[in-house]
Amino acid sequence: MHSLSVHTDGSAAEALQISQRLIQVGIALSSETDLQRLLALIVQQAKELTHCDRGSLFIRAGEELRFFVVSGDKQLQDLCIPLSASSIAGYVVLTGESLNLPDVYQLPTHVPYTFNRQVDQQTGYRTRSLLTVPMRDPSGQVMGALQLLNRLQPSHPTPLDPDQVVEWSQPFSELEARVAESLASQAAVAYQNVQLREELKSAHLETIFCLSLAAEYRDQDTSFHLKRMSNYSRIIAQAMGLSNREQELIFYASPMHDVGKIGIPDAILLKPGRFTPEERLIMNRHPEIGYEILSKSDSELMQKSAIIALTHHEKFDGSGYPRSLKGEEIPLEGRIVALADVFDALASRRPYKEAWDLVDIFRWVEENTGSHFDPQVVAAFNRGRSQILEIYHCYREPG
Amino acid sequence: MHSLSVHTDGSAAEALQISQRLIQVGIALSSETDLQRLLALIVQQAKELTHCDRGSLFIRAGEELRFFVVSGDKQLQDLCIPLSASSIAGYVVLTGESLNLPDVYQLPTHVPYTFNRQVDQQTGYRTRSLLTVPMRDPSGQVMGALQLLNRLQPSHPTPLDPDQVVEWSQPFSELEARVAESLASQAAVAYQNVQLREELKSAHLETIFCLSLAAEYRDQDTSFHLKRMSNYSRIIAQAMGLSNREQELIFYASPMHDVGKIGIPDAILLKPGRFTPEERLIMNRHPEIGYEILSKSDSELMQKSAIIALTHHEKFDGSGYPRSLKGEEIPLEGRIVALADVFDALASRRPYKEAWDLVDIFRWVEENTGSHFDPQVVAAFNRGRSQILEIYHCYREPG
Repeated sequence: MHSLSVHTDGSAAEALQISQRLIQVGIALSSETDLQRLLALIVQQAKELTHCDRGSLFIRAGEELRFFVVSGDKQLQDLCIPLSASSIAGYVVLTGESLNLPDVYQLPTHVPYTFNRQVDQQTGYRTRSLLTVPMRDPSGQVMGALQLLNRLQPSHPTPLDPDQVVEWSQPFSELEARVAESLASQAAVAYQNVQLREELKSAHLETIFCLSLAAEYRDQDTSFHLKRMSNYSRIIAQAMGLSNREQELIFYASPMHDVGKIGIPDAILLKPGRFTPEERLIMNRHPEIGYEILSKSDSELMQKSAIIALTHHEKFDGSGYPRSLKGEEIPLEGRIVALADVFDALASRRPYKEAWDLVDIFRWVEENTGSHFDPQVVAAFNRGRSQILEIYHCYREPG
Repeated sequence: MHSLSVHTDGSAAEALQISQRLIQVGIALSSETDLQRLLALIVQQAKELTHCDRGSLFIRAGEELRFFVVSGDKQLQDLCIPLSASSIAGYVVLTGESLNLPDVYQLPTHVPYTFNRQVDQQTGYRTRSLLTVPMRDPSGQVMGALQLLNRLQPSHPTPLDPDQVVEWSQPFSELEARVAESLASQAAVAYQNVQLREELKSAHLETIFCLSLAAEYRDQDTSFHLKRMSNYSRIIAQAMGLSNREQELIFYASPMHDVGKIGIPDAILLKPGRFTPEERLIMNRHPEIGYEILSKSDSELMQKSAIIALTHHEKFDGSGYPRSLKGEEIPLEGRIVALADVFDALASRRPYKEAWDLVDIFRWVEENTGSHFDPQVVAAFNRGRSQILEIYHCYREPG
């Protein structure tokens, strides 16, 4: 990082004030756990510290740059441009040099990069001064670029008219360039941390789906069923106002609800016809076997999954199994998964039955509210109906 | 955080220099992923920034404070003291106030806290000036305290004699107190991030053990077997010089090596006596079934586990199954897990056999090097023997 003390304007006191602000910003960035919010926070802080009108981020993804524009409350994203030194951001990422350009419509002729005026044309904006700095991680790798558009006077109100923005646009100072570089280095670490955490979580989720499916190998359940029912469970949990943490736990735990089927003998699990009452009794032991398996682990997630495995066949009126629990004796997560699981089973084709129409399922759920299902869970399910249908269409069985 | 500009000594230029240093320190702390190294880095940076002789950290754990002393290359840790305002660190954690004490052997009489001279007596050290600041996370919660001992003149060489340390010990300045507070806030976020990541990883590992065991439910394999063999695999990978990332992947992936047994019919898997050749053929399909199940997921971990499942019964001379691969045709992770798995099977009692003596196993492994096992894997296994034996004793079957 370049030192902030090497600056040609601004007093030491100003630099000190900004440095202390950067320490605070670093802490705020480090504590943000959501990628979208982090991106917005980086740009917002950069705009405030350098007094500019707009900002965007470019994140390197292989041979491309993913482009995030943050302007006001709009977020454009997931646009990609090829990584090449002919664009300004590409040049900065590839060389690791900052570019502090007073007017992008009047670039020197000998430079390898050009300003893409199409973006201005498409957005009705007019860029003049443009500061682009590398996002360099502590190992020295440049993982992206922070781009700041149109430096304005801090004292002025922000102009709304694009022509006025251009008129008021000033070059960024050397101090502002150093500040942006410093912020971009902090942002690089924060971004990598959030990304690493998301990778860890998604690897965990993959493991859960894959091994839960393994446990149901003989039962020929599909990963689509597990994905749909865990999403339905999360949507219901959200509509019931449970905390993010609880929603996430139910989402991760619910795919494991049937692992107890592993303990059911082939002769019963794989029997083609109807069960005898004795066979049904054995089959109905799978919630308890699941609980036995999953509760061996102390982790909060496995404890939750054990409870779901044990109680997802209980019914609200006490007519379920294995313990004939009634009403709120059934843990909430069990009541939620009970609905998510049955809903998805009815909506799916199975070797012995066709998929029901959605209209029929919603009516049937309504009819069984208070007997099979908790009325509050059904109410939440109905509030989340549009999201439920999104998942229903998104994770269709192939073919 | 208190502003560094509110200080009674030191020039603005000095404060600016320190602020910029703190920005760098914040980035360094944020990018550290190992908890032990992070703790050492926090204390080291705090010592350098405040010119003191020693430092320690107190991390709040419920109603206790966990105590980490870092002095030179020694790290004392996992000592606990009750969280109470009668200790200096406890007072700081409970009130959120910093304490900047010029001489802890001459505390004012009216204060609620006392200095515990026993620690000095036990360590042969002599504390005089002591600065203790809260580690406050961005939500305002105090999650610990940073404690700095004996402020020395930056220009002096560090004295080795405890009496000289006392003689040279000076009070910490107000600026140093503010710097330590700022650093402690950065440290709080970095610590929480690493802790959260460790929690995510350990939850993932729990899931792997629990669900891998579920898949082997009928086979009555034990979680101890899975824990031992995955640790053995990691030790071998480490002794072979594989990267930390590769070691970790093998450690997480290896417990899933037998999930394919889920696809073996009860009639064969649960058969008490010897297999007929036809039954053996079916039984030997478990590596391929495991591969089929695990390779459905794209995650790097599951891909690795699929390869291990497929190849852990191959032998170095080509006499293994299912593909009779030879030498380096067998992926390295398969060769590693082959040895770890067989070693643990021989060392364990099974319903049909006693546990072998370790001496016999090591001899048998030696005899089968080049035929069953890769000589390089065996060499690494022998280099890691002391760690292997540690795991062997640590994860014994109960009873």
